[in-house]
Amino acid sequence: MVDYRSMWSELALDLDKHDLLLQALPRMYADTFLSQDNRPKAMGYFDFVISEIHGLRVKELMDHKAGGGKVVGLFCVFVPEDLIIAAGAIPVGLCAGTQFSVPDAEEVLPRNTCALIKSSFGFKFGRTCPYVQASDFVIGETTCDGKKKMYELLAEYHPTYVMEVPQKKTTLGRELFLEELRRLKAKLEQETGAAITAERLVEATALVEAKRRALRRLHSARKARPAPISGLDALLVTQVAFYDDTARFTENVNALCDELDGRIASGEGACPADAPRILVSGSPMAIPNWKLHRILQDSGAVVVGEESCTGTRYFTYPSPEHDGSLAGQLEAIADRQLETHCACFTPNDERIEDILTLARDWAAEGVVHYNLQFCHTFANEALKVERALARENVPLLRIETDYSDEDMGQLKTRVEAFLEMLRR
Amino acid sequence: MVDYRSMWSELALDLDKHDLLLQALPRMYADTFLSQDNRPKAMGYFDFVISEIHGLRVKELMDHKAGGGKVVGLFCVFVPEDLIIAAGAIPVGLCAGTQFSVPDAEEVLPRNTCALIKSSFGFKFGRTCPYVQASDFVIGETTCDGKKKMYELLAEYHPTYVMEVPQKKTTLGRELFLEELRRLKAKLEQETGAAITAERLVEATALVEAKRRALRRLHSARKARPAPISGLDALLVTQVAFYDDTARFTENVNALCDELDGRIASGEGACPADAPRILVSGSPMAIPNWKLHRILQDSGAVVVGEESCTGTRYFTYPSPEHDGSLAGQLEAIADRQLETHCACFTPNDERIEDILTLARDWAAEGVVHYNLQFCHTFANEALKVERALARENVPLLRIETDYSDEDMGQLKTRVEAFLEMLRR
Repeated sequence: MVDYRSMWSELALDLDKHDLLLQALPRMYADTFLSQDNRPKAMGYFDFVISEIHGLRVKELMDHKAGGGKVVGLFCVFVPEDLIIAAGAIPVGLCAGTQFSVPDAEEVLPRNTCALIKSSFGFKFGRTCPYVQASDFVIGETTCDGKKKMYELLAEYHPTYVMEVPQKKTTLGRELFLEELRRLKAKLEQETGAAITAERLVEATALVEAKRRALRRLHSARKARPAPISGLDALLVTQVAFYDDTARFTENVNALCDELDGRIASGEGACPADAPRILVSGSPMAIPNWKLHRILQDSGAVVVGEESCTGTRYFTYPSPEHDGSLAGQLEAIADRQLETHCACFTPNDERIEDILTLARDWAAEGVVHYNLQFCHTFANEALKVERALARENVPLLRIETDYSDEDMGQLKTRVEAFLEMLRR
Repeated sequence: MVDYRSMWSELALDLDKHDLLLQALPRMYADTFLSQDNRPKAMGYFDFVISEIHGLRVKELMDHKAGGGKVVGLFCVFVPEDLIIAAGAIPVGLCAGTQFSVPDAEEVLPRNTCALIKSSFGFKFGRTCPYVQASDFVIGETTCDGKKKMYELLAEYHPTYVMEVPQKKTTLGRELFLEELRRLKAKLEQETGAAITAERLVEATALVEAKRRALRRLHSARKARPAPISGLDALLVTQVAFYDDTARFTENVNALCDELDGRIASGEGACPADAPRILVSGSPMAIPNWKLHRILQDSGAVVVGEESCTGTRYFTYPSPEHDGSLAGQLEAIADRQLETHCACFTPNDERIEDILTLARDWAAEGVVHYNLQFCHTFANEALKVERALARENVPLLRIETDYSDEDMGQLKTRVEAFLEMLRR
């Protein structure tokens, strides 16, 4: 076991507090993931990545920095990873998925902020996330009021750059976003000292697209009955996508998919063929937020997809064709990002269509709408989702929760009743 | 007493429910306003306007409609009244200030939505607001997640048009907003059948600017010690500004200001000269949301200003110079509206400057930051306001509340303790 304490110390982590965080994870991970039956062997890679969550990957980032490279933190799928990579920097999704860092955040942020935002801010404020500590700056966006205003406060503790995402899909909205991409490009060039050339961007986009393609392949494999991989494992893979080395991650996802192809061919599942198939839709789930998936799985269901930013919204939309020029590529990136069917847009009817398609094509018997408490945009769309699914006779369970364990009993009861209803 | 029941019936109001609403108001108004000592005589006009709140003014709107005119509902200071007036339509701020309509809204909207949004939606859903019923359509905006997504649901019950407000004050943000104004102009022309000409717009802007000028004059009068008008009365005037006839309203505000000038000259106040002077800052207060002002006043303080959308943010920023052309005027309107220091912008440091200036120039001894529960944008700015005021040694009281009466006792206790501290 490598000792990372000097690295964490160098990153100005609160070592005692950070110890508490890391002590809790292995047991939680073992209970949640390692205890599953009949896991694909290729999940071993992801088990290893998690076992080194604040170790090896952080070491890689630090080595990159030691060689003069930059690390850029991000929280949202609207921030284009390929632009960051093209500048020679490494993009990393930041810690945001645990109640552990929430009390720290509540010293500053309003309490009725969603758990994701509080957790992410708390990780910086409490100095317990090596990724934000390692990042040269953070790129925020304006996808919700909570994050938009949190970034203003975060900027007092860490270099933060905010890009605007428009709220209506209009011609001028696209222009504005394109200009924001140009400004972000200039910012990245200024920070890294590297020029983002057309060639570098083609390469970076290819790298990122390969990752997305692998994730789409994994997503497709979940159409099979029985599902060849558990919802927990599939969610974990998407979560890891946000911070792992892109090329290595892609290779390992494809290896996993090869194994799943074999399972599908032989009818082997991670669960019984008659397990109720559930689509989860709504707010994103950052590591280690596995709460809902675990409850569903413990209750006998199998999650076959996540219509979420830690799911389809991250990998579904491919970059459109372009002429190879830098300007043309930025336009393609703008179009790709704006294709994300996020509740930040008004209207956002495409998301409803996505959910209907996913429910149908992945043969989901029910949908669970997962809403982080105080996330206004998704909470408001829940009603539309409910109405649209009702028209197709697909039952919906609406869950609103946070990162605490306080409502576990209640959630279990509701989930079990929902599954019981589906089984009838 | 004119009988408006046939008009309300024509507007498809829920008459029984509406009766309950109207029955409650006179007593509440008498207790809150008419019981005040030494009110300016010119407040008689506003007393009359409130006594006819769902009567005479609605009748005027209906007469306007009978003559082929249009009525346009709005909720936000970003919607330019002059553009609506230039199309020959009447802009009206819609009902949004009471707990009465909140339960209706909660049948549809997420509960943890701010009271203002729930109240406004509930008025439509429960058919208890003659203004929204009389409106040919509503113009919404994207100033917060709660409203942005509420408008999508509102559109299922009432014609609703949404204009985008940018989130960063950039060149492209201004371009986007300008384009939204052009689209709104086209929409208004299409709905009214009238052309918005340069001449009509000059006239309409002059009308609206006269109103704003009168409100600025009233606001200035409150600098005097003793304050010549109570906080409640001044707030009421701004609230009425959103739906009264513009020219008549302006005339009556100026008459009130003439009277206040006399009071100031003779040192006559609406309160003792040593009453603690309070600036209220934060979320808007729609009629009949007089809760905080009443508590402050009952506790012996005088509110000398509202840094709010029902306060300075509504009337402070004058239209800049323009070349008289339609294009030039739209640019001037864009610049005027974007000058509004709303928490929807990131960053929004100008608002902090405004609060410091108001506290200093209006000789406020303390500031009360008023936050509607679940209003993320203002809640996040509260900390910045607190820090900035602390640097100037101005005490701040942070209040987070809704429209219910449940926290009245607690608020009173906190306000009294705050005033006691100021008096020392």
